[in-house]
Amino acid sequence: MRVLVNISYQGSQFLGFQIQQNGRTVQQLFEKILKRIHKRHVRIHPTSRTDRGVHALEQYFHFDTELNIPAQQWKYAMNRALPGDVYVKDVTIVDEHFHCRYDCVGKSYRYKVYQSETKDPFQSGLKTHLPEQLDLEKMNRAAQFFIGTHDFTGFCSQKTETESRVRTLYGSKIIKTADGFDYVVTGSGFLYNMVRVLVAFLIEVGKGKREPEEIPKLLEAKDRKQIPFTAPPEGLYLERIYLTLDELIATYEV
Amino acid sequence: MRVLVNISYQGSQFLGFQIQQNGRTVQQLFEKILKRIHKRHVRIHPTSRTDRGVHALEQYFHFDTELNIPAQQWKYAMNRALPGDVYVKDVTIVDEHFHCRYDCVGKSYRYKVYQSETKDPFQSGLKTHLPEQLDLEKMNRAAQFFIGTHDFTGFCSQKTETESRVRTLYGSKIIKTADGFDYVVTGSGFLYNMVRVLVAFLIEVGKGKREPEEIPKLLEAKDRKQIPFTAPPEGLYLERIYLTLDELIATYEV
Repeated sequence: MRVLVNISYQGSQFLGFQIQQNGRTVQQLFEKILKRIHKRHVRIHPTSRTDRGVHALEQYFHFDTELNIPAQQWKYAMNRALPGDVYVKDVTIVDEHFHCRYDCVGKSYRYKVYQSETKDPFQSGLKTHLPEQLDLEKMNRAAQFFIGTHDFTGFCSQKTETESRVRTLYGSKIIKTADGFDYVVTGSGFLYNMVRVLVAFLIEVGKGKREPEEIPKLLEAKDRKQIPFTAPPEGLYLERIYLTLDELIATYEV
Repeated sequence: MRVLVNISYQGSQFLGFQIQQNGRTVQQLFEKILKRIHKRHVRIHPTSRTDRGVHALEQYFHFDTELNIPAQQWKYAMNRALPGDVYVKDVTIVDEHFHCRYDCVGKSYRYKVYQSETKDPFQSGLKTHLPEQLDLEKMNRAAQFFIGTHDFTGFCSQKTETESRVRTLYGSKIIKTADGFDYVVTGSGFLYNMVRVLVAFLIEVGKGKREPEEIPKLLEAKDRKQIPFTAPPEGLYLERIYLTLDELIATYEV
């Protein structure tokens, strides 16, 4: 039986999603709980692997089990065993052909920035602090240039290990908030560090150091050295996972 | 020269204010920074010692220095060296007779609770979660009974080590918030765990398990066993420190 789990977590006290030799990760927490229940190792398969300090408002993983436990019972058992910074929102039993990673057709990320002269310790780990004034309208204009199908080689980590670096972005916009702005981006998939590089570039635009109109030729150039910044992980939230095209179409009319 | 420092901190990643053999504390962070600047150990004297997991929106400490550094420079130097969860709000040079602990005439604490069926990982460490419905009006009525000068032996930790357990509360009220309630209490001083015991009792009142009218006789009884709960530290914020009677009078007309 394949079990699909929808979770959220506050990333600041995790070394990321993926299990590591040492240190607290989301995968390690869940595999430990599942091991206790199954009396054997059970591997979980996430949609996405978030990095150290990155949050998830929604994230999926699946695992296979021989135990005949109803979905609601799984939810209850896991939440009882989890610490306060991770929460199981929903559990469903799915078809055995379903795969969290391969059946994911799109994702949305949100990057949160608060702007103020002074740092707020209560935003620490939850939003990125910027003391500067920014031209949000210009940043939003720049954000539009990323929409569409492009080779994002210039806008991801040089450590990216994938065959194709072509991705399709369906939405990309800057939203003004009470104390700063959010950048919300939806796409077919994202390369390593891609959202954080996009945000870093948009912030440079907001400061007046780069121009929105440079983006087409930077995409063309496929040269990461031309965009030397990566925004810090603490502002980044995996916000939504699209597991069916219908959901994605309903939101973005792809 | 005596230097007075006004700070705020997010308590969730601290073992408390006071220095300990092992583990991260607020005092340890500051004394490490001051040692680096002075090339010798410099002791800091706080107004209050907050416990593990307790936050401070405002907290004071002072230290003595032979260095002739202007107040703004102290602020800048400390903030540069501090991690994101502690922030120096203000620094002033004070009279050498001033003492953070002895000159403190009052304090306010705020205890934050969010009420929802499900736990929110992004409130973890910042507010206390309660799934129950509570009678906030009745809780506020109970809160009023604590105002005045009382022996709070029944409402503090049995480990409290002070001669007198008589304290004066100037304000004590429940405030409804968007997702739950805050308890705000102002007094001449507080005993060990006192605010957390007061809140725990008020929550019992909110659940209908205790009555506001019991409070006078519980204060009289001076028996902690009659109030068996202590609310968790994560919802507790040291909110304001009164260093002069004028400030306290201006707020509470003591």
